[in-house]
Amino acid sequence: MSIAYLNGAFLPLDQARISPLDRGFLFADGIYEVAAVIDGRLIDSASHLARLERSTAAIGIALPMPVAEIEAIQKELVVRNGVDEGLVYLQITRGADESRDFIAPAGLTPTLFLFVQHKDFLASPAARDGIAVATMPDLRWKRRDIKSVGLLAQTMAKQAARDAGAQEAWMVEDGFVTEGASSTAFIVTDEGIVTRPYSEAVLAGCTATALNALAQESGLAVVRRPFTVAEALDATEAFIASASTFCQSVVRIDGRPVGNGRPGPVATRLRALYFAFARQTGV
Amino acid sequence: MSIAYLNGAFLPLDQARISPLDRGFLFADGIYEVAAVIDGRLIDSASHLARLERSTAAIGIALPMPVAEIEAIQKELVVRNGVDEGLVYLQITRGADESRDFIAPAGLTPTLFLFVQHKDFLASPAARDGIAVATMPDLRWKRRDIKSVGLLAQTMAKQAARDAGAQEAWMVEDGFVTEGASSTAFIVTDEGIVTRPYSEAVLAGCTATALNALAQESGLAVVRRPFTVAEALDATEAFIASASTFCQSVVRIDGRPVGNGRPGPVATRLRALYFAFARQTGV
Repeated sequence: MSIAYLNGAFLPLDQARISPLDRGFLFADGIYEVAAVIDGRLIDSASHLARLERSTAAIGIALPMPVAEIEAIQKELVVRNGVDEGLVYLQITRGADESRDFIAPAGLTPTLFLFVQHKDFLASPAARDGIAVATMPDLRWKRRDIKSVGLLAQTMAKQAARDAGAQEAWMVEDGFVTEGASSTAFIVTDEGIVTRPYSEAVLAGCTATALNALAQESGLAVVRRPFTVAEALDATEAFIASASTFCQSVVRIDGRPVGNGRPGPVATRLRALYFAFARQTGV
Repeated sequence: MSIAYLNGAFLPLDQARISPLDRGFLFADGIYEVAAVIDGRLIDSASHLARLERSTAAIGIALPMPVAEIEAIQKELVVRNGVDEGLVYLQITRGADESRDFIAPAGLTPTLFLFVQHKDFLASPAARDGIAVATMPDLRWKRRDIKSVGLLAQTMAKQAARDAGAQEAWMVEDGFVTEGASSTAFIVTDEGIVTRPYSEAVLAGCTATALNALAQESGLAVVRRPFTVAEALDATEAFIASASTFCQSVVRIDGRPVGNGRPGPVATRLRALYFAFARQTGV
């Protein structure tokens, strides 16, 4: 049985229990992060922990411990569960309160929950063959820079994409792609790699940020601007980035092929660069 | 200790426990309802249960039992807790799943949680003196007709209103008031009672719907159209409706008085009509 962490204790995941009065359950009043593990080490950890600090600060949840201690818990879970490749999921909420007042009383004790998953990233068929995406209206709230657990719109978009035969939804607002339901969206055009600048309209992706830096270091232009679905269909390549997919080619959008319909050289190269970066910087 | 209901069992509220793998906690993948109790009876229950059915259907959660059985649980909680005036809170989520996949696997067992609160509605100072509201940008998602537990934007709006000295936030989008953070918004003008028509932009309020019907039955015109903040400031009266406030006058908006700055005759009359309706129709 997988070992999880909940509010100070390591315990079997199937024994972890919280109160249904937790504001994470009642109000989606919480933040999460997902970090990849490769070769038993946390990938791009500082970036994820910095975003955790930004997101919790944005909604006024005080971290119950310094991020260095949170990272120590993550590492302990990796060791205890023998995770070689996988994910560490982390969620912090404002805590439980039976008043169920929209305005949280002061002094609640935050809930901190972590668990791990074993995943076979490197041999993933989606990485080898690319994925299909389906475009969907972006129904989300306006503070997408905050990585909140209010993910119902994303689950609906992803389910609708699955129903359309795709593995990811690209969410569209005012004619422009914002991002994937659980990933950052990129296309490759004559200008170079095109991806939306960070704002309140999208999440600042940790893996995406690393990919942008790796691309520029290796001489690839990165243009930060919104792009339309039509531009994506005309692109030579398209791809997504996230902590659980790293960099995967998008080979079909709404059933139409991107480029020659196979993973392209830019995404393939970035994926390799990312794994080299990950192996060099894992902690 | 208050007695709650969780997944088939009545138990002390402080002993109720769920898995942190519940999709209500991980994804805000759940629906809620709040019903008022007056004189130990559920108010406007059929309307709340019909909305519960609509909301759960909209996100594809199958109710674990007919709504008549849910109402029986609500009544049982009212009796067991000796609730004379108060609220029954109900939440249903898609259930727990350790895959934490955005796409829920089929066959999960929904989580059903109910608990009660004692509230002193009838003697509420807010009802007697009216409340202040502060306008806030509407940051919510686009399917506000679904009464989901993804309430972080609402909690933020309400906290910001509190910080501005107000008791409720009126959320504003494209210049028009959508609704309150946890209530429906109304103004009174020369046209009559003005309130926004239902659409995906606002929740169809149960109490609001009853108030509209009561107003029309008593000869008051109800005009269904969006209104601006400027119109609200020029209105002779303003008020809110919800299951936990019934009908309360809004006497200040962003620090400026509405009408003469005191509860007005239309809201006062509607509040009385609502209590008569409630007492006649409670179950």
